[in-house]
Amino acid sequence: MREKSNYKITIQYDGTNYHGWQIQPRGLTIQGELQRALSLLDHRAVTLHGAGRTDAGVHAEGQVANFFLEREITPTKLREAINGNLPRDIRVMDVELVADDFHARFSAQAKTYGYKIFSGEVIPPFDYRYALFHRDKLDVEAMREAASLLMGQHDFSAFTVADSEVKDHVRTLTRLEISVAEEKSGKRILITATADGFLRYMVRTMAGTLLDVGRGFRKVEEVGEALASGDRRNAGQTAKAHGLTLLRVDY
Amino acid sequence: MREKSNYKITIQYDGTNYHGWQIQPRGLTIQGELQRALSLLDHRAVTLHGAGRTDAGVHAEGQVANFFLEREITPTKLREAINGNLPRDIRVMDVELVADDFHARFSAQAKTYGYKIFSGEVIPPFDYRYALFHRDKLDVEAMREAASLLMGQHDFSAFTVADSEVKDHVRTLTRLEISVAEEKSGKRILITATADGFLRYMVRTMAGTLLDVGRGFRKVEEVGEALASGDRRNAGQTAKAHGLTLLRVDY
Repeated sequence: MREKSNYKITIQYDGTNYHGWQIQPRGLTIQGELQRALSLLDHRAVTLHGAGRTDAGVHAEGQVANFFLEREITPTKLREAINGNLPRDIRVMDVELVADDFHARFSAQAKTYGYKIFSGEVIPPFDYRYALFHRDKLDVEAMREAASLLMGQHDFSAFTVADSEVKDHVRTLTRLEISVAEEKSGKRILITATADGFLRYMVRTMAGTLLDVGRGFRKVEEVGEALASGDRRNAGQTAKAHGLTLLRVDY
Repeated sequence: MREKSNYKITIQYDGTNYHGWQIQPRGLTIQGELQRALSLLDHRAVTLHGAGRTDAGVHAEGQVANFFLEREITPTKLREAINGNLPRDIRVMDVELVADDFHARFSAQAKTYGYKIFSGEVIPPFDYRYALFHRDKLDVEAMREAASLLMGQHDFSAFTVADSEVKDHVRTLTRLEISVAEEKSGKRILITATADGFLRYMVRTMAGTLLDVGRGFRKVEEVGEALASGDRRNAGQTAKAHGLTLLRVDY
């Protein structure tokens, strides 16, 4: 049977209750839920190609995936049909019929992640699933200085796991911004990172390292030194998964 | 034993998993969880007076309550101690030691509620617990015109339940605003209502009636007629609980 129609979907999910993107023998996953929903529609196993794997607890406002269906369905109908088979914490926001050679992962030009930190005395009940709670003050200006040292094309070996299967650790970081919104109950800090691609744990390790700088546990220049060393032991902790959101994928 | 210290607390909660504010023999409630947390601290039953009862599924960003403790504890320590005994979807944001005659309900001068509507094709996974999903377009200008007819001092019998225990249905609505935030995935519509007090289901019935106007199911002038009639049957449906949030109580 010829696989006829290549669909690109844009997905949002609250990762709180999932074991990440990638399908696993046990435990709920985003890919697993989506493939189950699609297989119910196409009456056969459908394989979904995601733009990137998100870890357990990571959220998405703009994950992208593609898959082939035997038959052609209008994008709006397909979106409704998939959403009808999904739990409410996973939603297909958009469906497009694309050229056969479109691949959500290999065609991606850039990805943007957001890492949220809530800095205050008490974390509001609406935020604890989506933001890292940091009780003490943060020196955001120092964090911004340190962030500027990570911008550009570098070998990011110091900011990924040593045993990663990916051999080439050179990535180009085109944006690493830190915005602050002051509210009555505290500060919402958002670290926004855009690159041509990210290594495993890269955003979370950058966030953890920048947090160390904000807390005064690490000097600005040490971040540049960690990067240059290529040694994971010189960077900070991998910040918790629930603060991370995949914001968008550009093609 | 003399009850010594009167504490005023400001509370936020995600009402999704609760049977409302008021303590019940069965089912989790906000008041029940708070009283349990306080009783663990004071080693005796503590009674909490809330500014107002919120229904099952309703949220709060600024609910207020007061209670007396046998001993005096500094507000910050008390806040930490209560939060340590609470689930994460209920948080005490602020604690104040107040005069003995302060009563969260009887001392309240005004309350402000927000009713959230998400108008778009797909409700994002981060919104379905907090906003009513409305798929079709809404005529927000017509809703605003209708809202202006409800402003001021009126008998709101048409916007509450007939069998309410409260006999006096006259309330003064000092604010009923509708704001719209356009986003890529849809419109976020917020109805903000401030009054000296609200009758049972009053905000939700106003929201349901304004929604009818937005959808073109009800004319603007019919809202004024419903109000004047004092007959519940002339107003719209009680909009779903999960869109409602108690934003603040003023003293």
